[in-house]
Amino acid sequence: MTRLRVEHDAFGPVDIPADRYWGAQTQRALAIFEIGEERFPACLVHAFGVHKMAAARANLRCGVLDAAIAEAIIAAAAELRSGQFDSHFPLTIWQTGSGTQTNMNANEVIANRANEQFGHALGTRAPVHPNDHVNASQSSNDSFPTVMHMTAALELEDRLLPALALLRDTLRERAYAFADVLKIARTHLMDAVPMTMGQAFDGFTAQVDHAIERVRDALPRLLMLPQGGTAAGTGLNAPGGFAQAFCAEASELTGLAFRPNPCKVEGMAAHDALVELSGVLNVIAVSFTKIANDLRWLGSGPRCGLGELLIPEDGLTSSIMPGKRNPTIAEVVVQAAMQVAGNHVTVTMAGASGSFELNVAKPVLIYNVLQSVRVLADSARVFALRLVRGLAANHDQLARNLDSPLLAVTALNPVLGYDRAAQITTLAVAQGISPREAAIALGLLSGEEFDRLVDPMRLAKGNPIP
Amino acid sequence: MTRLRVEHDAFGPVDIPADRYWGAQTQRALAIFEIGEERFPACLVHAFGVHKMAAARANLRCGVLDAAIAEAIIAAAAELRSGQFDSHFPLTIWQTGSGTQTNMNANEVIANRANEQFGHALGTRAPVHPNDHVNASQSSNDSFPTVMHMTAALELEDRLLPALALLRDTLRERAYAFADVLKIARTHLMDAVPMTMGQAFDGFTAQVDHAIERVRDALPRLLMLPQGGTAAGTGLNAPGGFAQAFCAEASELTGLAFRPNPCKVEGMAAHDALVELSGVLNVIAVSFTKIANDLRWLGSGPRCGLGELLIPEDGLTSSIMPGKRNPTIAEVVVQAAMQVAGNHVTVTMAGASGSFELNVAKPVLIYNVLQSVRVLADSARVFALRLVRGLAANHDQLARNLDSPLLAVTALNPVLGYDRAAQITTLAVAQGISPREAAIALGLLSGEEFDRLVDPMRLAKGNPIP
Amino acid sequence: MTRLRVEHDAFGPVDIPADRYWGAQTQRALAIFEIGEERFPACLVHAFGVHKMAAARANLRCGVLDAAIAEAIIAAAAELRSGQFDSHFPLTIWQTGSGTQTNMNANEVIANRANEQFGHALGTRAPVHPNDHVNASQSSNDSFPTVMHMTAALELEDRLLPALALLRDTLRERAYAFADVLKIARTHLMDAVPMTMGQAFDGFTAQVDHAIERVRDALPRLLMLPQGGTAAGTGLNAPGGFAQAFCAEASELTGLAFRPNPCKVEGMAAHDALVELSGVLNVIAVSFTKIANDLRWLGSGPRCGLGELLIPEDGLTSSIMPGKRNPTIAEVVVQAAMQVAGNHVTVTMAGASGSFELNVAKPVLIYNVLQSVRVLADSARVFALRLVRGLAANHDQLARNLDSPLLAVTALNPVLGYDRAAQITTLAVAQGISPREAAIALGLLSGEEFDRLVDPMRLAKGNPIP
Amino acid sequence: MTRLRVEHDAFGPVDIPADRYWGAQTQRALAIFEIGEERFPACLVHAFGVHKMAAARANLRCGVLDAAIAEAIIAAAAELRSGQFDSHFPLTIWQTGSGTQTNMNANEVIANRANEQFGHALGTRAPVHPNDHVNASQSSNDSFPTVMHMTAALELEDRLLPALALLRDTLRERAYAFADVLKIARTHLMDAVPMTMGQAFDGFTAQVDHAIERVRDALPRLLMLPQGGTAAGTGLNAPGGFAQAFCAEASELTGLAFRPNPCKVEGMAAHDALVELSGVLNVIAVSFTKIANDLRWLGSGPRCGLGELLIPEDGLTSSIMPGKRNPTIAEVVVQAAMQVAGNHVTVTMAGASGSFELNVAKPVLIYNVLQSVRVLADSARVFALRLVRGLAANHDQLARNLDSPLLAVTALNPVLGYDRAAQITTLAVAQGISPREAAIALGLLSGEEFDRLVDPMRLAKGNPIP
Repeated sequence: MTRLRVEHDAFGPVDIPADRYWGAQTQRALAIFEIGEERFPACLVHAFGVHKMAAARANLRCGVLDAAIAEAIIAAAAELRSGQFDSHFPLTIWQTGSGTQTNMNANEVIANRANEQFGHALGTRAPVHPNDHVNASQSSNDSFPTVMHMTAALELEDRLLPALALLRDTLRERAYAFADVLKIARTHLMDAVPMTMGQAFDGFTAQVDHAIERVRDALPRLLMLPQGGTAAGTGLNAPGGFAQAFCAEASELTGLAFRPNPCKVEGMAAHDALVELSGVLNVIAVSFTKIANDLRWLGSGPRCGLGELLIPEDGLTSSIMPGKRNPTIAEVVVQAAMQVAGNHVTVTMAGASGSFELNVAKPVLIYNVLQSVRVLADSARVFALRLVRGLAANHDQLARNLDSPLLAVTALNPVLGYDRAAQITTLAVAQGISPREAAIALGLLSGEEFDRLVDPMRLAKGNPIP
Repeated sequence: MTRLRVEHDAFGPVDIPADRYWGAQTQRALAIFEIGEERFPACLVHAFGVHKMAAARANLRCGVLDAAIAEAIIAAAAELRSGQFDSHFPLTIWQTGSGTQTNMNANEVIANRANEQFGHALGTRAPVHPNDHVNASQSSNDSFPTVMHMTAALELEDRLLPALALLRDTLRERAYAFADVLKIARTHLMDAVPMTMGQAFDGFTAQVDHAIERVRDALPRLLMLPQGGTAAGTGLNAPGGFAQAFCAEASELTGLAFRPNPCKVEGMAAHDALVELSGVLNVIAVSFTKIANDLRWLGSGPRCGLGELLIPEDGLTSSIMPGKRNPTIAEVVVQAAMQVAGNHVTVTMAGASGSFELNVAKPVLIYNVLQSVRVLADSARVFALRLVRGLAANHDQLARNLDSPLLAVTALNPVLGYDRAAQITTLAVAQGISPREAAIALGLLSGEEFDRLVDPMRLAKGNPIP
Repeated sequence: MTRLRVEHDAFGPVDIPADRYWGAQTQRALAIFEIGEERFPACLVHAFGVHKMAAARANLRCGVLDAAIAEAIIAAAAELRSGQFDSHFPLTIWQTGSGTQTNMNANEVIANRANEQFGHALGTRAPVHPNDHVNASQSSNDSFPTVMHMTAALELEDRLLPALALLRDTLRERAYAFADVLKIARTHLMDAVPMTMGQAFDGFTAQVDHAIERVRDALPRLLMLPQGGTAAGTGLNAPGGFAQAFCAEASELTGLAFRPNPCKVEGMAAHDALVELSGVLNVIAVSFTKIANDLRWLGSGPRCGLGELLIPEDGLTSSIMPGKRNPTIAEVVVQAAMQVAGNHVTVTMAGASGSFELNVAKPVLIYNVLQSVRVLADSARVFALRLVRGLAANHDQLARNLDSPLLAVTALNPVLGYDRAAQITTLAVAQGISPREAAIALGLLSGEEFDRLVDPMRLAKGNPIP
Repeated sequence: MTRLRVEHDAFGPVDIPADRYWGAQTQRALAIFEIGEERFPACLVHAFGVHKMAAARANLRCGVLDAAIAEAIIAAAAELRSGQFDSHFPLTIWQTGSGTQTNMNANEVIANRANEQFGHALGTRAPVHPNDHVNASQSSNDSFPTVMHMTAALELEDRLLPALALLRDTLRERAYAFADVLKIARTHLMDAVPMTMGQAFDGFTAQVDHAIERVRDALPRLLMLPQGGTAAGTGLNAPGGFAQAFCAEASELTGLAFRPNPCKVEGMAAHDALVELSGVLNVIAVSFTKIANDLRWLGSGPRCGLGELLIPEDGLTSSIMPGKRNPTIAEVVVQAAMQVAGNHVTVTMAGASGSFELNVAKPVLIYNVLQSVRVLADSARVFALRLVRGLAANHDQLARNLDSPLLAVTALNPVLGYDRAAQITTLAVAQGISPREAAIALGLLSGEEFDRLVDPMRLAKGNPIP
């Protein structure tokens, strides 16, 4: 049997497991919202630690809290940041749309821990009170969206951007390695003109390079925090200069350049900046899908597919077809991208749902954004290390494929004109002969002329006919 | 330090924590797919227990397994079903698109557990082999989608349908209770004609009633299982009659009427039945959004909102506005609905992504379907018990609102004609007088005539003018 | 210069082009809603003709209209139905969320046309008044959603179901034709086991067959009409029996079994039935994507693709690569499917957005549903006639592909066990030899044993090893 | 009967209506793609005019075309740009995924028109050939995506950005006008603290201001053009310097700073830049939804809603409730936003669907992007001019609402502490008394103290307690 203690809030007494640092509002919420199993990731709890540290420091600066109380809060919040209290956040994301319960959870854990350090039992609400002190100069309405922005920004910096850079660099390295590997280009899935495998990888690299730019472009609006707006954006009960002081402290603690949102109402009533970020994650998901699909198709086979790339082995196989190798990593990446695209719709709906001074779909919104960041970042890393880095060209198959009739004919347009060049393709495909043979059979070119005009590597480089 | 044992598969030796029942393929996957934290819900692991029990029984019937092996598998699988091995499924959903790793995880846990019962150490792969015996007559390609269907169907029966029935009944009970509570109807958010609160709740009840029908309509295609298709739908390596035997056993174990999909290729290469189910969940999410929004708007206030319903208190409040009560449950329901709508897009993309004989977005697809079922079911339950059941009419406010000028005028159309009735509204709104006064002022009706024609309860019932 | 006439409504005079049959409310709306170019398809205008015919007949039955007025309305509405007044519906879909302006447009055109037949000038509003007579016993709030349901149901019957049947039959015919064409199955895009091309087409056929079932399952809820609910679902101003009479008349006019929605509030305040239908269209889009993608991949080449199917020529080619043939039809089908999936999200949002007694996203909702029905139906038809019907097997390529090492090895599982069978694949792929050679080299089977066990057609049929 | 002429292409003769300038490939496509009615907007056809002018000029510069041919092409293309040939683009968007048919349509119209100017009949294909001259140095594969980018950029500059600026300025003007209008803030739809109506409109203004920034941030990647990549991004058949020359000419013709995409493969194989733009449009749709919803809720009534804003009359009314005024414009804006959000999903799927060197969902992708731009731009304009500009404050109702108990209590937190302040709210709501009375009754404050502490305008400004 769990030992219980009794804690009071404005509505009366509540039983709480004796060894838990959360308080009455958290416990009430736990009993009410018996829904699902989705929890905020630990990074959000840790960001709440940073947030409450910065708030206490700003309150100290602004003269709202005295030093002893502020220091106790800062010390407890630092423990939150470090992960020590992760298991004291029992709520799922299925709570009030303002995130109030998780903000109160943070307030309660910190107050209890601080009071404990002062030598008081959990639940005394003194000398440190969860609302009057830990939440001083704040409302859930400005604190929770501030933590949403802070967590997202930290996750982008710490997780997504490094992973994208790794993927981009790994793709670029493959592009160099494949710079002289000739292959047939495909448009509409059909044989087209010659190119190099390096050019295909240049395309992938450019996509991921743009992904990094897109994330960077979305950051400035994300670094604007609504802290200081308190209940409805007016700043009621926050002292003058609190917003600036908070951002300065948060920036010092994290190294990110947070600044006050000049329009607090906007930052609490709407979450356009996070919808925008989700749109950027959606583009990245689109890019990953394109790249992963191309790689698994180019690696398809081993005998009956395109087979131009050799995908590294990973030791996983079919449960019935012994020794079969599958493009497992590419499949994961594509599935992660689907999750991000669906999450984006949830985020869009959540963002569009606000009324008046408060958007009340905050928990579901930030949960989906953070999940998207995480699965994209992890996918990018695994994609780079487990698939892209180990890719090799299948030279035999690539060479076989350079034989396609269409490959050559486009190059003859400027010499023969479009309509006569078309006759070559038609004849070659119909009779199963090479375009060279077709050109000669049609009396359009001699074999020597053909060979001079059709040089795959020159064509791949887009160089003019000599 | 975790103690390790060595286990072998077709690719060589692998180190595994000594106390874990999973095997080499699971361990390899764990090292490879370092992505996210999303795991299949326990219900899917339990359904795998049922699945492997049914498969072993069918193999026994078909003469593929001898009795001792089959019995050992059945016993171990029964433990899986009961939840004993939940912590031995360490993989996230981010794995091969066929779900092969989780199928192998089940095969390995069952084989190890069965061998242990035979007195052998974990990892011996004998006498029970994870592929040759536990997976006998099966492939991941037919087993995983079979488990997808089974889990979804079980969750619908055990979780969603009862929760929908509870919500429907609770709404209906409120509709009865509010049958004679007059209120103003609103169209375009604007004052319209008289109705009863009961009629509004009849509408909600009808929506949830249809939700139940929609789920029931989707079930038949969900109960069709592709088991027996093995690797590509052809049934290679499965004995004649295996599909029928499997479905018979699975039905007996669960009480659901599973039957073989006559076209195994369809059931493995596509997941249209699950996309369809997700579409049904999406409609339910839409219905919930409508109902929850109406309730929170009707309960808005306490002084400056519509205030026609009193929402039950839940003991949760604002972190800065002491004593403020918010429609927390309605907000949760709406957020859950957004999640379902976004999940549906993921499911749609996953369903559309198959190639040839296998859809390879199975893990992400079923993860999203099961999450949608769960959050809808739990939301429905909490919605019914914590919000709808406690709703009360705010009679003062309702009475005040029956004074609106538009309320009456529509009833005068058949008597005065549309154009003259419009003059009453225009005058009443412009001068802030009642429609009765306006009708008299315009010389269109006497006060007595007006009172005879305009009887809100008669109008609410749609009864003809006497 | 357009000649103008002046028409009056409750708000005063309005200038209208003299030769246009629409009236003051339409003209006002035209000036206000200067947005986009999207118009309702003609089928919705025609359905309004049916609707106003049925309403006038029901009003006659119920004694609301006298015979002369009713007959004049019926005659004019019949002209609407026949398409004569299509160009008199100038509004885009970007109008009030109840569709009021298009309902008024219909009322005005019919009143003007009826009055003209009585020998009166356009705009006289007598003897037939657009509101008092054409709209008698109705509101836009029940008429527009009724027309939404009627149009959707008619489009399903007249357009989508026949097109789906054509596609299903055409696929089935190909399945028969390809019944004995052996091919390699592919899972994860990789070479798997033998199957027949007919089996692959059986899968496609089953998908479209289910599509037809899904549409049929959605019809009953679509055939329920909210007509009779008038302004807010209470039936105010509609005579007793109007809903029944209307449905009887509408059924007689169309041949569809319309019936009154027993809960009018539900049918006007929510559009769950149309969101459900859109979900069904979304599944069909998913199915089409799968099929079209498979066909274009199987037809990829001509030399460097999979090349197992020959896609019929259509005379279209590249603007730069002379003679290149592309899978144009498959690309159209896939694009149409994407449109439907996106429309579905719009429909979902529109469905979720209702408040109180009226959903006010009706125009955008029905526009998207009807666009989805149309592009799916047309795509299905073109897909069947221009692509599927002309597909041929590329026997040379199919035969070449039956050589794959994996093809055979799975069949050896029951004989050799999974772990030894895996050695064959590994050796064959590593050394580029055939599985037969590998089996012999490993000393696992003699050549004769191998040939007896590995018979592709037997394996494709899933038949047990002799 | 339409008079016909015969035209030839590489596949043989085709009958074409004699007075139509399109050619054989367009006519063939017309017969094949009998799907839907969706057409590219005129702005895309006009942009093709600009494109072919710029291409001909660049070809002249690079020595690919001689002056006479180039001048004839430029003159004909200028006519295309001016709208003269809009009716000669008969195809729907349902065509090959590369947009080849519309590119060929442009090539054919221009060639025919140019040849006509040279005195030749339509269809002679000389001296100006649609492929060899109009399409010189180009492929559909680089031309169509170039036109996609050009059209989108032009529409942003010409249509969306001015409309957003108008809306932003109109909102800001209302914010000024409402700067001293006190109102109650609402969070969770519930009465919260005092603020000014101007602060609410500051929030809306900030949202639209950010919208403009977001569009501007997306432009740089949109101004990068893949022209010069020809068939597969390698530049085969385009002369050196063509990409630069084309961009210089296109920039001169349009005033936009187009520049060559350094990675042509990326610009043809993927459309991440347009998916990104669609994401930005999606954010704008989200912002519009928030603003339009707030305005219609604040304007709800006239007697039974929130009624704090008076929405300008527009002369539109109900078909059954005479004189009823509805928030028609807000409903349009919200519906337009839903369309954009759905289109975004289509665009996402289209963007994710590319394979190898060509994305083949270009027509559906650009159609949806352009529709989104158009309906957002037009909505913004109508929103500003027809709704926002005419908004007035309903001072009576606003004053009544300032009486709410919660309004005051939050301000007392710093004085009384959270727990005692909560007692005031609880008592005031329970007994229906004012918070002032409750505070006195609880012995917490005197009436004078209460009045000094609770000054709504001071609280709205967030000023500290004196």
